[in-house]
Amino acid sequence: MPTQLYLGIDMGGTNIKIAVVNRNGEIEEETSLKTELKQSPENVIRSVINRASGLKNYSKVKSIGIGIAGDISCEKGIVRFSPNLPKWKNVKLKEIVEKLTKKKVFVDNDANTAAIGAFWLDAKGKPDNLICVTLGTGVGGGFIFGKKLYRGATYTAGEIGHITIDANGRKCKCGNSGCAETYIGAKYISEYAKHYLNKHRSKIIDGMTGKNRSLATPEILHSAALKGDKSAIEIWKYVGEKLGILLAGIINLANPDTIVLCGGISRTGKFLTDPAKKEITERAFRSAVKGCKIKVSHYTSKLGVVGAAMLADQ
Amino acid sequence: MPTQLYLGIDMGGTNIKIAVVNRNGEIEEETSLKTELKQSPENVIRSVINRASGLKNYSKVKSIGIGIAGDISCEKGIVRFSPNLPKWKNVKLKEIVEKLTKKKVFVDNDANTAAIGAFWLDAKGKPDNLICVTLGTGVGGGFIFGKKLYRGATYTAGEIGHITIDANGRKCKCGNSGCAETYIGAKYISEYAKHYLNKHRSKIIDGMTGKNRSLATPEILHSAALKGDKSAIEIWKYVGEKLGILLAGIINLANPDTIVLCGGISRTGKFLTDPAKKEITERAFRSAVKGCKIKVSHYTSKLGVVGAAMLADQ
Repeated sequence: MPTQLYLGIDMGGTNIKIAVVNRNGEIEEETSLKTELKQSPENVIRSVINRASGLKNYSKVKSIGIGIAGDISCEKGIVRFSPNLPKWKNVKLKEIVEKLTKKKVFVDNDANTAAIGAFWLDAKGKPDNLICVTLGTGVGGGFIFGKKLYRGATYTAGEIGHITIDANGRKCKCGNSGCAETYIGAKYISEYAKHYLNKHRSKIIDGMTGKNRSLATPEILHSAALKGDKSAIEIWKYVGEKLGILLAGIINLANPDTIVLCGGISRTGKFLTDPAKKEITERAFRSAVKGCKIKVSHYTSKLGVVGAAMLADQ
Repeated sequence: MPTQLYLGIDMGGTNIKIAVVNRNGEIEEETSLKTELKQSPENVIRSVINRASGLKNYSKVKSIGIGIAGDISCEKGIVRFSPNLPKWKNVKLKEIVEKLTKKKVFVDNDANTAAIGAFWLDAKGKPDNLICVTLGTGVGGGFIFGKKLYRGATYTAGEIGHITIDANGRKCKCGNSGCAETYIGAKYISEYAKHYLNKHRSKIIDGMTGKNRSLATPEILHSAALKGDKSAIEIWKYVGEKLGILLAGIINLANPDTIVLCGGISRTGKFLTDPAKKEITERAFRSAVKGCKIKVSHYTSKLGVVGAAMLADQ
């Protein structure tokens, strides 16, 4: 039997990643190009397909999967709106790419492709029920239930960042109050840090930011924590506890066997995950906690492109 | 083709319900007996099977499903512990009933059988993704995803009552703090009512409880609300808002097409659901709310027995 190969495209706001992936979710061949934000969507798509068709195994690829942030109609393969690609409004991505390539095309949002990617790369296709939590500017999620992507009734399942963890908490941009994202989204982490650092001075962070506490980004706070800075460690403890409250609820609700944390903030590692795990142990059902592996993805930058390729398997 | 029939048994702490159900989840024949709490599990099981085998269609039944509250190993069909049946400890229910009947037997917990029952009775087997929320002493849940029961990695999925809605809220018996159940569980509703009524006198409720505000049970509060009592209506508004916060999170997370509320507290109807729906509209994603029907079950007392019968279909 010839090897089954899939093409994945991860449409980011900075780079577009392209990979040929085998049926085990392993990358056989990859390339990338800069995202030309000023070009029309049609021109961008043509450049991507041009680049992809230069890959050695392109002719063997039976289908193409594309992951993209934003409001995506995955049924119709239409990009209604993408925050990373401001010119993309109601782009019939599936139709255009199918016409150009004569191959079957699948389109989905980046939280879903990340979840499929985590299922194959971090979990080697083994778990029945995996939840992928993307920690970045936003807090997103994707669900694999029964080894398949779970999209929900109107394809919006997985909005993990917009679970209320404090009914009286601050207003979120989604309209709700006390959403998890208002504690663990990157912007809110920086805000909390600024507030905290005004009360607890840190020479290390002051040195890194020139005493401009608005510059205490998650990256700076991670570097400071690695240098042993107590304030940074305390700030991550606070964020980790909020993440733990969120994950405890998700574990009680969905009882997954695997949770994969990915995205920029997840790189903070144990400064974030140790307090989160402590909170989970205190809050969630013992048998559900025992049955759930929590890991930080080793493949954050590859999840999207592999997950996009494997959309064909859904 | 002969009609496919299933036998369902709902093992309650007061009554045991038995029904023959067809492949559309419709009851063809039913009976019930009192639960003999002092008898050994084996004797209770024998009485149940005796009663069932007297049903007209019993011989046509291909399989038996049993729903029971508590810690159930649904794989092995063992009742580790049941709060309703104190003598039942590590009872090999599936094995015993299979030996007695020579029929295939399925066992699951009552939150899961309620969800399957709601899927067939309230939703006529149509929704892809249904969440059933049981509102009683405890707050439980069962998930139907892709028209099938979703049990999770260690069979504990659906613990809706133990999602944190207020990270700093009061301690729950599960060990967590600020669980939804600590606002909308029956005992906590009574506690809140007592507290509220100490501040806001109600002649109607005082008349119904002889001024003993500890007796302001959910039933009393429902009757008082029906009589137009403002305090009772305000208490239900508070409870409904908390329910709404919980459901908004679940809608954002799981994007179900149908939510069915069942259990004693759900009988309160619009006093509970109107404020809940208002809160959901304010808090959850518009497209997910639009795509989700929320209804109070018309069949609370039948969900368990029908869901148990239909376990064979999972």
